[in-house]
Amino acid sequence: MTAYTATVTVRLKRGVLDPEAETTQRALERLGFELADLRSADRFEIDLDADDADAAADRAGEMADRLLANPTVHDYDVAVEQRE
Amino acid sequence: MTAYTATVTVRLKRGVLDPEAETTQRALERLGFELADLRSADRFEIDLDADDADAAADRAGEMADRLLANPTVHDYDVAVEQRE
Repeated sequence: MTAYTATVTVRLKRGVLDPEAETTQRALERLGFELADLRSADRFEIDLDADDADAAADRAGEMADRLLANPTVHDYDVAVEQRE
Repeated sequence: MTAYTATVTVRLKRGVLDPEAETTQRALERLGFELADLRSADRFEIDLDADDADAAADRAGEMADRLLANPTVHDYDVAVEQRE
C-alpha cells in the first residue's frame, strides 16, 4: 500500500445560485475591490493508503458520491498526489 | 488589462481544531471508508482584470487579507491563471 493525498474539490454546478459567493462578492466590492465574478468551492484533502493512484482516486470519488457532494447541485473533481 | 482567474485557497492553520473536517471524517468512516486524515478548505475563484499576473495575485492576496481569511486561524495561498 502507498500513502496518497486525494483532493476533492466540490463546486456548485453552473447556473445554480450561489448566495454565499454573491454575498462575498458584494462585500469585496464595498471594500473597493473590482472583480468580474466570484465562485466558491469546498475542498477536502484526504490522506489515505491505496494500492495505486487510480485506486486512491476511485475511493475519493466514491466518498464524493456518497457524502461530500450532492449530485443534484454539485460537480466535483479529484486530484491525487503521493504522500511523503 | 488582461482577464485572469485568481484562486484563493483558505485553510485552517495546522494545530487549529477543525470540527467540520472531524465530523466529515467520522461520517465517512461510518460509511465504511478507511482514511488516515481529512482536512477541509474553502476555495474562492475570482475573475478579475489586471495589468499582469503579479498584479492579479497581489489583488487576490489583499482580498484574502481583508475579508476571505482570518489571519488568526487561517493560512491561504493564491494561484493565478489567464482567462480565455
